[in-house]
Amino acid sequence: MRIAILHGPNLNRLGKRNPEKYGTKSLDGIGEDVDAAAERLGVSAVHFQSNSEGALVDWVHEHHETLDAFVVNPAGLTPVAYPLLDALRDTGRPFAVVHISQWHALDGRERADIFADSAAVYLAGAGWHGYALALEALVFKATRP
Amino acid sequence: MRIAILHGPNLNRLGKRNPEKYGTKSLDGIGEDVDAAAERLGVSAVHFQSNSEGALVDWVHEHHETLDAFVVNPAGLTPVAYPLLDALRDTGRPFAVVHISQWHALDGRERADIFADSAAVYLAGAGWHGYALALEALVFKATRP
Amino acid sequence: MRIAILHGPNLNRLGKRNPEKYGTKSLDGIGEDVDAAAERLGVSAVHFQSNSEGALVDWVHEHHETLDAFVVNPAGLTPVAYPLLDALRDTGRPFAVVHISQWHALDGRERADIFADSAAVYLAGAGWHGYALALEALVFKATRP
Amino acid sequence: MRIAILHGPNLNRLGKRNPEKYGTKSLDGIGEDVDAAAERLGVSAVHFQSNSEGALVDWVHEHHETLDAFVVNPAGLTPVAYPLLDALRDTGRPFAVVHISQWHALDGRERADIFADSAAVYLAGAGWHGYALALEALVFKATRP
Amino acid sequence: MRIAILHGPNLNRLGKRNPEKYGTKSLDGIGEDVDAAAERLGVSAVHFQSNSEGALVDWVHEHHETLDAFVVNPAGLTPVAYPLLDALRDTGRPFAVVHISQWHALDGRERADIFADSAAVYLAGAGWHGYALALEALVFKATRP
Amino acid sequence: MRIAILHGPNLNRLGKRNPEKYGTKSLDGIGEDVDAAAERLGVSAVHFQSNSEGALVDWVHEHHETLDAFVVNPAGLTPVAYPLLDALRDTGRPFAVVHISQWHALDGRERADIFADSAAVYLAGAGWHGYALALEALVFKATRP
Amino acid sequence: MRIAILHGPNLNRLGKRNPEKYGTKSLDGIGEDVDAAAERLGVSAVHFQSNSEGALVDWVHEHHETLDAFVVNPAGLTPVAYPLLDALRDTGRPFAVVHISQWHALDGRERADIFADSAAVYLAGAGWHGYALALEALVFKATRP
Amino acid sequence: MRIAILHGPNLNRLGKRNPEKYGTKSLDGIGEDVDAAAERLGVSAVHFQSNSEGALVDWVHEHHETLDAFVVNPAGLTPVAYPLLDALRDTGRPFAVVHISQWHALDGRERADIFADSAAVYLAGAGWHGYALALEALVFKATRP
Amino acid sequence: MRIAILHGPNLNRLGKRNPEKYGTKSLDGIGEDVDAAAERLGVSAVHFQSNSEGALVDWVHEHHETLDAFVVNPAGLTPVAYPLLDALRDTGRPFAVVHISQWHALDGRERADIFADSAAVYLAGAGWHGYALALEALVFKATRP
Amino acid sequence: MRIAILHGPNLNRLGKRNPEKYGTKSLDGIGEDVDAAAERLGVSAVHFQSNSEGALVDWVHEHHETLDAFVVNPAGLTPVAYPLLDALRDTGRPFAVVHISQWHALDGRERADIFADSAAVYLAGAGWHGYALALEALVFKATRP
Amino acid sequence: MRIAILHGPNLNRLGKRNPEKYGTKSLDGIGEDVDAAAERLGVSAVHFQSNSEGALVDWVHEHHETLDAFVVNPAGLTPVAYPLLDALRDTGRPFAVVHISQWHALDGRERADIFADSAAVYLAGAGWHGYALALEALVFKATRP
Amino acid sequence: MRIAILHGPNLNRLGKRNPEKYGTKSLDGIGEDVDAAAERLGVSAVHFQSNSEGALVDWVHEHHETLDAFVVNPAGLTPVAYPLLDALRDTGRPFAVVHISQWHALDGRERADIFADSAAVYLAGAGWHGYALALEALVFKATRP
Repeated sequence: MRIAILHGPNLNRLGKRNPEKYGTKSLDGIGEDVDAAAERLGVSAVHFQSNSEGALVDWVHEHHETLDAFVVNPAGLTPVAYPLLDALRDTGRPFAVVHISQWHALDGRERADIFADSAAVYLAGAGWHGYALALEALVFKATRP
Repeated sequence: MRIAILHGPNLNRLGKRNPEKYGTKSLDGIGEDVDAAAERLGVSAVHFQSNSEGALVDWVHEHHETLDAFVVNPAGLTPVAYPLLDALRDTGRPFAVVHISQWHALDGRERADIFADSAAVYLAGAGWHGYALALEALVFKATRP
Repeated sequence: MRIAILHGPNLNRLGKRNPEKYGTKSLDGIGEDVDAAAERLGVSAVHFQSNSEGALVDWVHEHHETLDAFVVNPAGLTPVAYPLLDALRDTGRPFAVVHISQWHALDGRERADIFADSAAVYLAGAGWHGYALALEALVFKATRP
Repeated sequence: MRIAILHGPNLNRLGKRNPEKYGTKSLDGIGEDVDAAAERLGVSAVHFQSNSEGALVDWVHEHHETLDAFVVNPAGLTPVAYPLLDALRDTGRPFAVVHISQWHALDGRERADIFADSAAVYLAGAGWHGYALALEALVFKATRP
Repeated sequence: MRIAILHGPNLNRLGKRNPEKYGTKSLDGIGEDVDAAAERLGVSAVHFQSNSEGALVDWVHEHHETLDAFVVNPAGLTPVAYPLLDALRDTGRPFAVVHISQWHALDGRERADIFADSAAVYLAGAGWHGYALALEALVFKATRP
Repeated sequence: MRIAILHGPNLNRLGKRNPEKYGTKSLDGIGEDVDAAAERLGVSAVHFQSNSEGALVDWVHEHHETLDAFVVNPAGLTPVAYPLLDALRDTGRPFAVVHISQWHALDGRERADIFADSAAVYLAGAGWHGYALALEALVFKATRP
Repeated sequence: MRIAILHGPNLNRLGKRNPEKYGTKSLDGIGEDVDAAAERLGVSAVHFQSNSEGALVDWVHEHHETLDAFVVNPAGLTPVAYPLLDALRDTGRPFAVVHISQWHALDGRERADIFADSAAVYLAGAGWHGYALALEALVFKATRP
Repeated sequence: MRIAILHGPNLNRLGKRNPEKYGTKSLDGIGEDVDAAAERLGVSAVHFQSNSEGALVDWVHEHHETLDAFVVNPAGLTPVAYPLLDALRDTGRPFAVVHISQWHALDGRERADIFADSAAVYLAGAGWHGYALALEALVFKATRP
Repeated sequence: MRIAILHGPNLNRLGKRNPEKYGTKSLDGIGEDVDAAAERLGVSAVHFQSNSEGALVDWVHEHHETLDAFVVNPAGLTPVAYPLLDALRDTGRPFAVVHISQWHALDGRERADIFADSAAVYLAGAGWHGYALALEALVFKATRP
Repeated sequence: MRIAILHGPNLNRLGKRNPEKYGTKSLDGIGEDVDAAAERLGVSAVHFQSNSEGALVDWVHEHHETLDAFVVNPAGLTPVAYPLLDALRDTGRPFAVVHISQWHALDGRERADIFADSAAVYLAGAGWHGYALALEALVFKATRP
Repeated sequence: MRIAILHGPNLNRLGKRNPEKYGTKSLDGIGEDVDAAAERLGVSAVHFQSNSEGALVDWVHEHHETLDAFVVNPAGLTPVAYPLLDALRDTGRPFAVVHISQWHALDGRERADIFADSAAVYLAGAGWHGYALALEALVFKATRP
Repeated sequence: MRIAILHGPNLNRLGKRNPEKYGTKSLDGIGEDVDAAAERLGVSAVHFQSNSEGALVDWVHEHHETLDAFVVNPAGLTPVAYPLLDALRDTGRPFAVVHISQWHALDGRERADIFADSAAVYLAGAGWHGYALALEALVFKATRP
């Protein structure tokens, strides 16, 4: 089982940006945490980040046939990225939405999450460990009888 | 670290009710899954279910001083249980909200989740394993430096 | 065929409370009217009233396996009783909603009726005879070819 | 006591249109069911159907002085027929609204029911027997002490 | 100058219907009041009433070329008669909307008045004399320098 | 019978301001038109204009006991002048609302008219002659049997 | 294949009414354009116009069994004609909605189009040639493999 | 004159919960403050608290015949307790709503107060002394000529 | 401690206006009731009324430095007086809002109360004694340890 | 006459993605259908697709001076692509909006279409042949006298 | 070129009120900053402040003929001052709206700005220097070719 | 002090696009106006424009550490560019929003401005000189004591 971890705009600055809010863990550090979980669960993870929605859509088109599921943090694109949402839905694979902080309690919580209705798993507030937990949830759902 | 797992109305019928939607796992089975996770993480879990909101509030009053966090599935009380929400908030302890199925995609998704804003962790759609994952998220948040 | 007649909060005071609005018929008197209709239709009726939603949910859990349908007057719980609604839906049996007065014309008609969408039959404004008519409607629907 | 049974647009096609949704009973067959109920209750019923709201209004003007109540299924006119609603209210007689299927659960439930507030009785979901039950409700309300 | 006085549904029953609300003046009596005003102002008035919107539209099509303005009381059609509104607007002539009672204070004031935006004159609450006053307003607007 | 004609803010500039929209008639000219109508109807009119709501309220307090009705053009105060509305309602006398142009068709028609519900007569779009017509409507309503 | 072209209120005045907005083509001229397209596509077209919704509903009842599809311009009935919409849906045949001008950009675009959700094809802004294009679209959909 | 002081969920923890927000006064301490006011005013007070709405409704049913008025702090039940509101209204006695802190300024002020419309007196923000002041207001209203 | 009692528009007519609704007590009589309470509590009260918001703002500017708190009844200005609200907030002193009748149950309850969020105490429905009770609440809050 | 056919995100996967919903026609196949129509009408068509809105805007900037009109399917960008909409409007050329399936009936119909108001032609539901029909509509509008 | 600087309620207290929010600059100090800018730009400025909207309207009536533009800070009147807005619009001169702090980010940002749509220039958040910048913007717009 | 001037989509076409609306000044010309202002104020300005939001985000990431503030015209991205907004907020530097025309009065004013709440300065309607004025406002705010 092969799972993509997709990161939306500004997440390349994790660890540098608002460390008191998002922690000091960099994107690479999160990748290591996810890879450790993937190894423990017997699956593999691939990682991609972009500040451009079009690049994320292109990436999904190019790789989805070799993937079984997605863990996505759309970040600032959360309320507006219908093309990315369409691309994910068109793959026919389940995806989990992850927000590092508790999205519902943010100042900007008026931002609708257009991904929420279509997500198989929804996880917010678990910090950078949320990616690994969401990956475990997807594997659990794919493998329980 | 001691964590309560609270279940709202109708969850006593898990495994019997709508098995195609909620699975065949009973509440006791979920408890075993949570206890296994708790043991692995070096914490302990206590369990309580009731169909009456008043009883859930009473339970929180009586036990909260010996607890460090809560994992709560308010079930049908999700959009209306302000007293339970107040009781949880007044404890000063973090709590995670768990929904077995993906709440945002439910038919009845017009039901607001009044717990969402105050929750430390929000997890929906991970099935009965969601309780264990939410417990791990709470422990992770309490123990990371 | 066995049908439960469920009464929500304050209906135990029927006949005493607001007689000019709800009539002078007591809950027992209504029970007799329903039983007469049930006998004429060749079915049996069982009755339960409570001021606590939790008790109504418990009652549904305990009795639903011996029942074929429900006639429910949620009274003041009409806009908020999601747990009771879940309990009824989970039984897989049809239920009729009855309001003694014409709910849509009430002063408090801003109160949404969360039961309306899921009800097989909806009857308001027929006074205390409405229970018997709703029972007849449920029997009619279950037995017409 | 004399009661009119009014049918709005497209109901002349009952039994032919969407039989899996509205049954195979024709408008004449429903008339017989209503007449049987009327005879049992010692009242008489008159029937009228039209696809034109103006014709329904004209009919109410011409006949209301010889009538004591109305059973109305406005069908597609339900959200827009203010002239018909005015005509009914101006008669000073009570009227019952009947919907064959459960109106609140229809796909098109966004259609407001402008008749609901003024109706003495509201009955939805009892199939074609609903007309007879609504007639019984009106007679019950007119004759109980 | 030639002005049409158009009456919508149920106004044929003026004087008979709700006399305490709409007065005891019949439609013919109103016509006499309007004709007296028209004579005083040196214009002529023609009158038409129907319970069918289609008939009102047909009448406008057939007569508008010989008319200079309209006084319209759409009655129950006020919130829904887009075809009548289109027919009036397409004539290119000004029209006045008249409501016998004060429309904004009616119980049913939730009914939008789709004619209001396009009307040259809007008059409500002047009783049956409102038709004559509206006619005077239209003449005033057409003849002041 | 004695009737006050009240003018709100900026109406002192009638005839000078936006003549293509409001005409070239000054406030004094309107007063003459109203006085002529009053004389014909056998009543008397008094006039007052102010740019300050407080002054309008004071004026109503000081004069209402010698008055039988009011014709009011609240102008820019239309959506906000609750104190003026209260003052008028507290007199127990009927009042007519007059707008020179057709209020409902104005660009700023999003401005609610808080006077509309309480007005006995509502007249918009009749130009400066609207004051005289509204006065006639009030007299008509006060004197018809 | 046989397709009906239905025209709602005021369209009988096409070519005479607002020629700068709707062109100078009469309804008969549009019929010829549609018939030419029908002949080219090997299908036949029948035409009907009425200012009364009831007459349109009656026409659909009487002819639908000999028809395979509908092209409908509901004109002023667009936001309110639930009976006509029901009649079309009950035929089980696909229908295309046509608006001569671009409906979404009209001044009166607050008018909801209740036909839009159920239409197989939706075409606005193509002028009087829109009927022929919609007919082609319906034929294309019925005949592509 | 005999007045009930009703406390909703979590108020049993007053003095222990959020002392910086609700003060250090316990429910017993508040009772003493109220009793002192009652004695001064020559009336008597009875006290009841519960975390279960059903128990509050039962209490009102059992005691209302010996009571003249109610002072109620619905606490977390404020936006949802229709059964409690119905029970209070059905007694025909006036009731005052008390909130210890200023309800309108709370974070959770989106919570509607369904009791507000029916309350004879509404008092928020006066701290634990608010119960005594509300009791005085009810006595004042009952005894002024 | 020195507290201002501010009265908005039309309250100068208390006792004369709507006595069945607001009682026969004049503004002077209320002043005496407040002064008696002030004396009992060991504080002093000053009184001001105006029908002009600007005058109320001016008064606050001139006197606030010698005052410790405000009791305000904004009357008709309640939904619109942002300048008065700003003036009160800028003083940095607490203020209580008083409504003589129960504001939430008024016919005009659609009027928002823009003062509610910023008020330290909110009291409605206690009649003219409400001023004295609000003053006591402010003193209580200023002096409890 | 030269017309651009613009395709938004994910349309490069037409024929591969959701064939049961969007058909098996690829983007190249659609291009051939459009080119055939263009040839028949004596115009030429150019084609462009991108998953990035910025690239679509750049393309419009670079090519619009050699173009007379646009046929655009914004796909997932439909509710959010204000820059693309601005770019199209700034060209001063008419554009047609095409949706392959009937946009108004989609599950995601809550997605507003920000292009609708500015489009000269709007066509939905005609399948992949819709592009050719929209092109014909644009040519018809540009060339009819 | 002559430009008026208008200040609404409470701005006479600038420098004394909330200095941490609005700075320590008094109204006179701002006047000097504006005069310096005016001199540099070769125009002249006149200043007026009032706590009464009526006085502001009177001032505009008396001076507008000698003025070319306005810089207005409506302060607390921003959401309600339709008479002032009308007075400004009726002058036919452009006006700039200035808010000292960033209006959109204020706590009370639910206050609509009714001046925004009609303003030629809108400037918020530039502190007391905003008046001078707005004056420069108006001069720039009046003088660029 | 170093300030970036950021331009969103389509602004590269300033001077060519809609000159009657946006003037004939090109982006380079605006840059010269800004540079002149910067030089006068003793600061430096850098400029960047892109039609792709992702490129704007990338640019902010790469340059923000050498910058003290931003002047941003998001153009068509104004209602949707959450990633750009996040990037700006994450820099911790103040930014000013500039719109060349008066945004609030645009036809498309229904477009929310998601940048408004977070902006330090907000300036609309000052034409191409607005960039220079906004830069001056930012410098003023950074340097006043």
